[in-house]
Amino acid sequence: MIRTHDAGSLRATDAGTTVTLAGWVARRRDHGGVIFVDLRDASGVVQVVFREEMESAHALRNEFCVRVTGEVTRRPEGNENPDLATGEVEVTATVLEILSEAAPLPLPVDDQIEAGDDVRLKYRYLDLRRSGPAAALRLRSKASQLVRNVLHDRDFLEIETPTLTRSTPEGARDFLVPVRLQPGTWYALPQSPQLFKQLLMVAGMERYYQIARCYRDEDFRADRQPEFTQLDIEMSFVTQDDVIELGEAIVGTLWKELAGHEISLPIPRITWHDAMDRYGSDKPDLRYGVELTELTEYLRGTEFRVFAGAIDAGGYVGAVVMPGGASQTRKELDGWQDWAKARGARGLAYVVLDAESGEARGPVAKNLSDAHLAGLADAVGAKPGDAVFFAASANRREAQELLGAARIEIAKRAGLIDESAWAFCWVVDAPMFERTDDGGWTAVHHPFTSPNADWLDRFESAPQEALAYAYDIVCNGNEIGGGSIRIHRADVQRRVFELLGITPDEADDKFGFLLEAFKYGPPPHGGIAFGWDRTCMLLSGADSIREVIAFPKTRGGFDPLTSAPTPITAQQRAEAGVDAKAKPPTAPVHTGTAGVSAPVEPS
Amino acid sequence: MIRTHDAGSLRATDAGTTVTLAGWVARRRDHGGVIFVDLRDASGVVQVVFREEMESAHALRNEFCVRVTGEVTRRPEGNENPDLATGEVEVTATVLEILSEAAPLPLPVDDQIEAGDDVRLKYRYLDLRRSGPAAALRLRSKASQLVRNVLHDRDFLEIETPTLTRSTPEGARDFLVPVRLQPGTWYALPQSPQLFKQLLMVAGMERYYQIARCYRDEDFRADRQPEFTQLDIEMSFVTQDDVIELGEAIVGTLWKELAGHEISLPIPRITWHDAMDRYGSDKPDLRYGVELTELTEYLRGTEFRVFAGAIDAGGYVGAVVMPGGASQTRKELDGWQDWAKARGARGLAYVVLDAESGEARGPVAKNLSDAHLAGLADAVGAKPGDAVFFAASANRREAQELLGAARIEIAKRAGLIDESAWAFCWVVDAPMFERTDDGGWTAVHHPFTSPNADWLDRFESAPQEALAYAYDIVCNGNEIGGGSIRIHRADVQRRVFELLGITPDEADDKFGFLLEAFKYGPPPHGGIAFGWDRTCMLLSGADSIREVIAFPKTRGGFDPLTSAPTPITAQQRAEAGVDAKAKPPTAPVHTGTAGVSAPVEPS
Repeated sequence: MIRTHDAGSLRATDAGTTVTLAGWVARRRDHGGVIFVDLRDASGVVQVVFREEMESAHALRNEFCVRVTGEVTRRPEGNENPDLATGEVEVTATVLEILSEAAPLPLPVDDQIEAGDDVRLKYRYLDLRRSGPAAALRLRSKASQLVRNVLHDRDFLEIETPTLTRSTPEGARDFLVPVRLQPGTWYALPQSPQLFKQLLMVAGMERYYQIARCYRDEDFRADRQPEFTQLDIEMSFVTQDDVIELGEAIVGTLWKELAGHEISLPIPRITWHDAMDRYGSDKPDLRYGVELTELTEYLRGTEFRVFAGAIDAGGYVGAVVMPGGASQTRKELDGWQDWAKARGARGLAYVVLDAESGEARGPVAKNLSDAHLAGLADAVGAKPGDAVFFAASANRREAQELLGAARIEIAKRAGLIDESAWAFCWVVDAPMFERTDDGGWTAVHHPFTSPNADWLDRFESAPQEALAYAYDIVCNGNEIGGGSIRIHRADVQRRVFELLGITPDEADDKFGFLLEAFKYGPPPHGGIAFGWDRTCMLLSGADSIREVIAFPKTRGGFDPLTSAPTPITAQQRAEAGVDAKAKPPTAPVHTGTAGVSAPVEPS
Repeated sequence: MIRTHDAGSLRATDAGTTVTLAGWVARRRDHGGVIFVDLRDASGVVQVVFREEMESAHALRNEFCVRVTGEVTRRPEGNENPDLATGEVEVTATVLEILSEAAPLPLPVDDQIEAGDDVRLKYRYLDLRRSGPAAALRLRSKASQLVRNVLHDRDFLEIETPTLTRSTPEGARDFLVPVRLQPGTWYALPQSPQLFKQLLMVAGMERYYQIARCYRDEDFRADRQPEFTQLDIEMSFVTQDDVIELGEAIVGTLWKELAGHEISLPIPRITWHDAMDRYGSDKPDLRYGVELTELTEYLRGTEFRVFAGAIDAGGYVGAVVMPGGASQTRKELDGWQDWAKARGARGLAYVVLDAESGEARGPVAKNLSDAHLAGLADAVGAKPGDAVFFAASANRREAQELLGAARIEIAKRAGLIDESAWAFCWVVDAPMFERTDDGGWTAVHHPFTSPNADWLDRFESAPQEALAYAYDIVCNGNEIGGGSIRIHRADVQRRVFELLGITPDEADDKFGFLLEAFKYGPPPHGGIAFGWDRTCMLLSGADSIREVIAFPKTRGGFDPLTSAPTPITAQQRAEAGVDAKAKPPTAPVHTGTAGVSAPVEPS
């Protein structure tokens, strides 16, 4: 090392020591010939003093990279800086070497200055010299190390799975890669290691994990990246409780070590249906109450067309209460209508309860009977001064999700969120199936998700009610992980495919190699995957996953730093075989081409 | 867990315990109604006994996945199996549950049977149930854990770099990925994180590592994969010695923990030129001697046209000795000519020294003068009974490499390789530049590699002699890692570009974002990358990197398991924007669009 000490490590006990430091000029002040420089390296900052005779120091500018030799001295009494770990000392420089200069900075390396995302990402290497962004990457590194230790202590194997693989029929689109050596054919980048990790269970690896890069070619929402990372886990011979216990060990360790928070274990479990009924969300934020109330029965018989229509259609009417919401201005109440319309709803019906009399007023009040109005506050648990928002739909889930979104918005507007709180839950007993637009069924998770013990033998009898061994872990309203127990029995898999309308030929085309593997003694298995970017984002207190990614992309997948993606040259295009037609396969299917078939006989 | 114990963990002290196991039927033997099954799980194997009343056991076949409850008992005296960790006990089954059945196996799960690569890879999930292949993946997982611990103990940060990035001008071709959201533009998959790790140094991260997936679209040689893994490391404020010391800590830990071998440190260093002169290779196998001898001066003046031509052209003549090589048959000696021609040489000149008289015979002997013949044995260090192989060329390196290859072949044919030995060396002081076909210069490593202190100020004066701070670590003739100290001074970088004939515009086009970053106080930095597949291969004693890859591809990048790559549909092609023309950029270059330029003033 070209230095002897880390700048941030110097203390009063080092006084009298001659040290050589290397780092960056974080700040310089000129005091009548004496120059003070805050010298920053990865360990922290120390003050360096250049006396008048050190003339070369006059050339220093912010972010010059320098090497300094000098003596550690205690600062003059009264000049200590208690905000700085090194604040009792300074280094009086005797040698200065400018390792490299810095041009005027497009992005000030200053924690106090807010810069736009574009410039931060274009000059990410300057952004990361700031303490906040640097700390986020340090935290992520530590988080990965902590979970690896948890998993290695439990005999998990870290196994790398391919990323140049076969296009699979998952929800989003695959990124594709032309294959020069087999022109006309393409690899796909994996959306997850799902099929490979299941194959590893068939292979008898029993406990697999990987911090895996995954790819989804989705239309970009605010907080999506085309490539992302998941902590991917699969285990054999386990039940749902085993996977949940492991998940709790992981988040317990992470939050204890990195957020100083002891999660109270076990983490509460809530069924998917309860989560929808009470919070209007399958990832409820439990840092606050504000639960939904179903009013379908209470309002049965109402003459208010909007509610009656939903009730008559076998749908749902419900409400959520905004504490103190009656004090909102007309403009604020109108704002809720805009909010609802922006979500695609027609509006948000409401009444406000007079703070004094408790009397219900507002657009919906005049449409409800006196009896319904009289009992409303009790029915929804509202007090005088509150506002009550309603949703009604023939589609129960749609109405609940509107109320669930209103619940979150209420918590924000009414200041109900304790930003220092951590609220975890498991959402379990998710539905197996949901209706497709054409009246068939589709898998809510994926078609390898196992029905739970109650439904294993009879999911066909009521597909809409059948429940899966599927579980999500939710933190403060963010789904940070999810998984399931997989089907390992051929007969159950066949029945699920049948219900989903997947013919054996289609199944073979889509999942052939996994189904083939399942012929050879697959073990019961299940797993979980944590969204690693999101988990680290929450741990670091950031408000975007970009903060915990070294070189993130902006919307549309653009990288302001390298300007990727770029056009390619005609030569690149030709070489990559982009326009080649695939030849008919030259080799027959490889079954048995190089090995012996070995029927197994008792011996 | 659906089992109470690991099969491989049972010992005599467990006798009397009722256990539930889950695993696979590894072998079954039927002894007159009593069935013995070797039950295998990830922990090992235990014998399970099914008495006559357990009729369901008759259905068992190899690789059925089962759950068994029974009592651990000591085996009857004389029936212990000392080769098995569980060999003192057996489990007498009282409950058997068949978790899943296995069809007749296309690949016997049997360590004794050699199967072809095609069938092994197509049924990799069966292959991995064998102890050898499973052990290779376990070793790799352990190796990754060990190096992570070494690096975290030294305050390295694990940082993930992008894999959807910009095409870079490295040696091999990039894999390309069309970008649906910006039709007509493409990402490239990275050949290494080189540029990003250097940016992380500019960012002040100081110590970075990553076990990184990399991609090279090369014509497949025997042991190449289109995607591969490297242990990638970069450090700031270091010298070559610091990186070498870290490299030694890494290999020292790996070989001690995984190969039971204590590497004697420091690992010897040999200069690149010495390696070529003595071993004819920049990755010499030091498990055996058989050094090259230069004969250019010794043979000066010879009338033998082949040698004289090389000498007169300012080239090289040299020799390597095959101990005992005189006893080779004519056919064996002719075989060397075929061997040389297969390498692209015209042949391999040789003499053999009579085992009794020491007299030189063979095709070359008659072309050499008596004086040259008389002194030859001493000049090359040969004894009676040896063979001496010669190479001569106007191109010194070409001739040395032929002798270097002959040296390896000699060691194999003469049985000189101690297969249990580990011989490490660092090859240092590599040349900076080599001639291009058109008479210019190209960088031997990459254009960011720093000249060493001797050459920093004068590499232009003799580019062919200039040496770099570049170092490779070699194990048993395999390059397992390599790296360099990088240039961080703008003036040095400019001079290197100038010598390489790279104009500022070209440099900007090729490396613009890195050069831009280097304007802002880049620290001195350097690093190393280990070929992780190859390192794990050596540690596991395997003869192919495929053995330490969970799901490797065959030549041409084909995956026998999933049949990737595949043709894509017209819809996929259209959606991915493969045939779109790139729009002219819609946004101007992002410099300064969202941030303030902050010239730094003393304050």
